[in-house]
Amino acid sequence: MKEKILSIAQRAKSASRETANLSTKIKNDALIEMARYIQDKKDLLLKANEKDINYARENGLSSAIIDRLTLTTSRIDAMAEGLREVALLPDPVGEVTRMWRRPNNLQIGKIRVPIGVIGIIYESRPNVTVDAAGLCLKSGNAVILRGGSEAINSNIAIADILISTGNSVGIPHGSIQLIDSTDRSIVNEMLKMDSLIDLIIPRGGHSLIRNVVENSTIPVIKHDKGLCHVYVDSEADLEMAERIAFNAKVQRPGVCNAMETLLVHKESAEIFLPNMLKRFKEAGVEIRGCPKTREIFPDIKSATEKDWETEYLDLILSVRVVDNIDEAINHITRYGSMLAEAIITSNYNKAWRFLKEVDAASVYVNASTRFTDGNQFGLGAEIGISTQKLHCRGPMGLEELTSIKYIIFGDGQIRE
Amino acid sequence: MKEKILSIAQRAKSASRETANLSTKIKNDALIEMARYIQDKKDLLLKANEKDINYARENGLSSAIIDRLTLTTSRIDAMAEGLREVALLPDPVGEVTRMWRRPNNLQIGKIRVPIGVIGIIYESRPNVTVDAAGLCLKSGNAVILRGGSEAINSNIAIADILISTGNSVGIPHGSIQLIDSTDRSIVNEMLKMDSLIDLIIPRGGHSLIRNVVENSTIPVIKHDKGLCHVYVDSEADLEMAERIAFNAKVQRPGVCNAMETLLVHKESAEIFLPNMLKRFKEAGVEIRGCPKTREIFPDIKSATEKDWETEYLDLILSVRVVDNIDEAINHITRYGSMLAEAIITSNYNKAWRFLKEVDAASVYVNASTRFTDGNQFGLGAEIGISTQKLHCRGPMGLEELTSIKYIIFGDGQIRE
Repeated sequence: MKEKILSIAQRAKSASRETANLSTKIKNDALIEMARYIQDKKDLLLKANEKDINYARENGLSSAIIDRLTLTTSRIDAMAEGLREVALLPDPVGEVTRMWRRPNNLQIGKIRVPIGVIGIIYESRPNVTVDAAGLCLKSGNAVILRGGSEAINSNIAIADILISTGNSVGIPHGSIQLIDSTDRSIVNEMLKMDSLIDLIIPRGGHSLIRNVVENSTIPVIKHDKGLCHVYVDSEADLEMAERIAFNAKVQRPGVCNAMETLLVHKESAEIFLPNMLKRFKEAGVEIRGCPKTREIFPDIKSATEKDWETEYLDLILSVRVVDNIDEAINHITRYGSMLAEAIITSNYNKAWRFLKEVDAASVYVNASTRFTDGNQFGLGAEIGISTQKLHCRGPMGLEELTSIKYIIFGDGQIRE
Repeated sequence: MKEKILSIAQRAKSASRETANLSTKIKNDALIEMARYIQDKKDLLLKANEKDINYARENGLSSAIIDRLTLTTSRIDAMAEGLREVALLPDPVGEVTRMWRRPNNLQIGKIRVPIGVIGIIYESRPNVTVDAAGLCLKSGNAVILRGGSEAINSNIAIADILISTGNSVGIPHGSIQLIDSTDRSIVNEMLKMDSLIDLIIPRGGHSLIRNVVENSTIPVIKHDKGLCHVYVDSEADLEMAERIAFNAKVQRPGVCNAMETLLVHKESAEIFLPNMLKRFKEAGVEIRGCPKTREIFPDIKSATEKDWETEYLDLILSVRVVDNIDEAINHITRYGSMLAEAIITSNYNKAWRFLKEVDAASVYVNASTRFTDGNQFGLGAEIGISTQKLHCRGPMGLEELTSIKYIIFGDGQIRE
């Protein structure tokens, strides 16, 4: 196992130099060719996917996992479309973000360069194989893909298409590789190869991410949980507040930027909550409230400490009435996962204070937390959402898959 | 020990929120006050330092370590001056680096915010205590300082002044803390506190850095070794090449951006090397050459594989004659630490190729590698030089001690 992953990592490292210097045209042409072959080989992909689904059924995997695992004609079309969209995005490699002249006439610039070799460790959804390969290629990185064992047949079939198509149009061998073994020890070997791999991106459940963070000697960018709040202030437009809170909870409850806890200023609570919670109830949302919430809207469960800490990813909502904005910010600071947080207010000072003091990847005034997404932010496709502060934070697109280097133009300068 | 470091980390975390929102004026006033007290309490600092020096002598520490450890009046003045310079630098916190409008009228901005809590693990030189505390304060971060045991008395004395002066002018308790125990286990406990500490910066020898990288669950920015090359092309101005190569090796050989290996194109070697190597010899540089170098300049040792891999940090130089720029780039890619690399050429295509293909933090055309330094680049003071690709690369100043967050201004937008 160790030899296997070592040779994959070495191949990636040696391919990374050439990948970094590919022209934009070659990369774009390859992405478009890959998209075409993904659609052309649809039957082959569906067949491989069927094996995974059958295996999942036989082994009693949950219907949620089976759903994420399943490929359909329209999902395959969407994967191909994703590659075409990446081809349309501007190439980040080679962009000089700043250039300045020093008193000694040295001209110094910062230029975007690929990171090098990126390892992606993910679960279930086979479309990640396509998205990650496409984004890494466009940003000039070599990629090592390690999907979940439950999707191994689908991932192998997809990777075969991407790799053979890529190689046929000038993408170096080793630029895109998939680990085709489901042996778990291989991941832990990979996480120690810091001289060959530059970055690990884990995408998946909490235990996958903890394992990576605890064992990796390679820098990690993690996409951890999202426990988001909407705070309805005393000076909020309550119609707007209702529209936003409803959207943040109900539009797609299973994703990381959905609201899990609604915080309401005590002066707004009596007017706001009865309608709002009635509407949630009608939409099938189970509500768990603090004592004050239950006074106003009795027929609901009591929220416990555990509720404030839980990312439901489901039609369940915790509700808490707070005395003021301080209590709201303190609650968010204590329980929030710092992914997306919103205030609804028409007071300038409170809006500004919330923006400054809430230390989340994205902080909203008068809009739904659901916008925390690379596409919605206008960054193009995203490879994940960073929930850490180093390297990048929030939606992670092509730019975030690059590093920089300094280039220095001299005419004989030496240091005195 | 675990309780001790846990309570330090918790205090830092809770101070970090207030530190992040300090006004620029309070931070600058505190830095200037700290500078004043560092100079006022000079005698106290020299006395504490004497204890460390005596202990080092008694325990037979090397003269290099004792030199780095030693405080003098002028070194104390330089530490104070460093704080005053940091006070003069622009405050990075709150800078909106970009702002754009989406089709739905959401206005989205990226704003610089402090990272949070930063742990700095370093060796010997007590001035790091002052520099690191000053830079972390100015960038709005709480800092936990962990200096080397050999400098413990000096570091405690310095930290006492910084902390008491800071607190007296409005810097929150817990913003600056020094671990006053030399117990080694405390570092490994600290490296696991990823819910309280946001970043670890190790500064020191290779074994210190390896220990941090291998044991930390907190993101690390490492300042590892520098094995830098100067490549003299066939089309170089050989006078300029001599001036630059001499500067890169001799001006300060003990630092990471000094040249360790000189690569010379075979067409330049016979004219260039005799004078160049004679000059190095006269300056006391020991030369180790490849076979071709020894043909041209006999009286020198033979360079071994180990020489190409060694960061001498001393008046020793490896010299290799190469057939062409490819061989030069391949040598650098194989042996370089990718900190600072230079080409001396008057050929446009080769200059551009070297800039593109050499994957180092800083790549030079016709200038000395010795400029790789925050001050020389015009970034102000630096907390180190990142030798990794994630988060930042090369000299690391105030901007690199910040993260970003997205701020989103809406007027009721929901996601469809």
